[in-house]
Amino acid sequence: MTRQELFTQITRKGSFLCVGLDPDVDKIPAHLQTEEDPIFAFNKQIIDATRNYCVAYKPNTAFYEAHGLEGWKSLEKTQHYLRTTCPDHFLIADAKRGDIGNTSAMYAKAFLEKMDFDSITVAPYMGEDSVKPFLTYKNKWVILLALTSNKGALDFQNLLTGNHLLFAEVIRKSAEWGTSDTMMYVVGATRAEMLQEIRKLIPDHFLLVPGVGAQGGSLQEVAKYGMNKQCGLLVNASRSILYAGSGTDFAEKAAAEAQALQLEMSKLLKP
Amino acid sequence: MTRQELFTQITRKGSFLCVGLDPDVDKIPAHLQTEEDPIFAFNKQIIDATRNYCVAYKPNTAFYEAHGLEGWKSLEKTQHYLRTTCPDHFLIADAKRGDIGNTSAMYAKAFLEKMDFDSITVAPYMGEDSVKPFLTYKNKWVILLALTSNKGALDFQNLLTGNHLLFAEVIRKSAEWGTSDTMMYVVGATRAEMLQEIRKLIPDHFLLVPGVGAQGGSLQEVAKYGMNKQCGLLVNASRSILYAGSGTDFAEKAAAEAQALQLEMSKLLKP
Repeated sequence: MTRQELFTQITRKGSFLCVGLDPDVDKIPAHLQTEEDPIFAFNKQIIDATRNYCVAYKPNTAFYEAHGLEGWKSLEKTQHYLRTTCPDHFLIADAKRGDIGNTSAMYAKAFLEKMDFDSITVAPYMGEDSVKPFLTYKNKWVILLALTSNKGALDFQNLLTGNHLLFAEVIRKSAEWGTSDTMMYVVGATRAEMLQEIRKLIPDHFLLVPGVGAQGGSLQEVAKYGMNKQCGLLVNASRSILYAGSGTDFAEKAAAEAQALQLEMSKLLKP
Repeated sequence: MTRQELFTQITRKGSFLCVGLDPDVDKIPAHLQTEEDPIFAFNKQIIDATRNYCVAYKPNTAFYEAHGLEGWKSLEKTQHYLRTTCPDHFLIADAKRGDIGNTSAMYAKAFLEKMDFDSITVAPYMGEDSVKPFLTYKNKWVILLALTSNKGALDFQNLLTGNHLLFAEVIRKSAEWGTSDTMMYVVGATRAEMLQEIRKLIPDHFLLVPGVGAQGGSLQEVAKYGMNKQCGLLVNASRSILYAGSGTDFAEKAAAEAQALQLEMSKLLKP
């Protein structure tokens, strides 16, 4: 998917919502636990209930790998279901990979070719040759970790290196490895006040913003400081949507939660 | 496995070799390509040929994930074969994972519980709460990226942050999250000259050292600057062993390569 195509979807739907598919079996409603594949059964209903309110889906690989082979099956089925029923949605493999060149090339193959996601989240610590192999696929994206939403982000990402904080140096340097048509950055909603500074470095790039919802970030603040002319934001919510309900009506509750976010977003998108 | 148990194996074998299991199907000998599971068939022979010369194995998850579900099957079979036939070896999931706490907990479950590896490599960028969930398993280890062997290591790991280079700050701070009985660090053999400085920060920790062999690092240098009283080193070789031969005798060639490294190591281990 190209940047223009993504922006078209955002405009059409009045939404820049990404739904994170982090299916925790301990939180999946009881009536789904007897399904052959509870994770996929859960995802399927969440997808059906939310697709009109979001422009992107983001399966988090950890929640599938935790179940070994069966989990990997659920991940492939989820990706396939998304590709089939949501052809206009942007699909993110939230995998946080990154390794030496020949190994990153294998991860790129896994998620951008074998499973045909549009993008993958990548960790920057190992530098340029760990990121570049993900940038060799046409119309596919690297979403590089910059400033994450968790407490531990302060341990290293906020250290001063020369004239920049580390996360800003990561953005500054890595922006030369690709373009705003091939790279996005993860910036946590819990750090909305930093978005102004980040926009000075990368005015045009899309930002993937986790941390709204369960982690407490504010959508208003994110839009105020992070939005650009082509929206430039994908705001992710996972737990607040997935576990909005815990009964047989969980999908309706999820839809209501996604719709509420979409409504708020549609207002923020108006000039 | 405890630190003492690992040191006992090193002493008994006269080896601190770790064999990296990065099976690239394009490099697997032709006669194995018709096997039902070429990757596992290849690994099995490599393991049988090298187990007497090494103390650890390190499957690199990327090379399995690149083949989707079939690859994940090969990884599980490889782990099971290692656990069954090499009960005294230290098993490393080279996965370079790391995410917010609830997600890292899922990765820990995947590799330290579901697949029962002894350890997992973890990326430090997201800080303490992304690492801690891996430290909750008894006698299991986090192997944290510090100074990697690739060119891109210079992009961020060598930036000056306050009084320390970033990789040293990662070591200094993270050493408080666990102990030398629960944490190791990745330090590339291509940076052997930095080992002296690193040993000032963490005299007792084990270091996992990739980069000997195909990447050009020197075993002599690594031992000179990195060895401590309990050896404190696991030196990894992958490609130089796996692809020492490309014919039907690939396993013998791999054994010879592993044995040559073991012989050199046994001399370096002598007081």
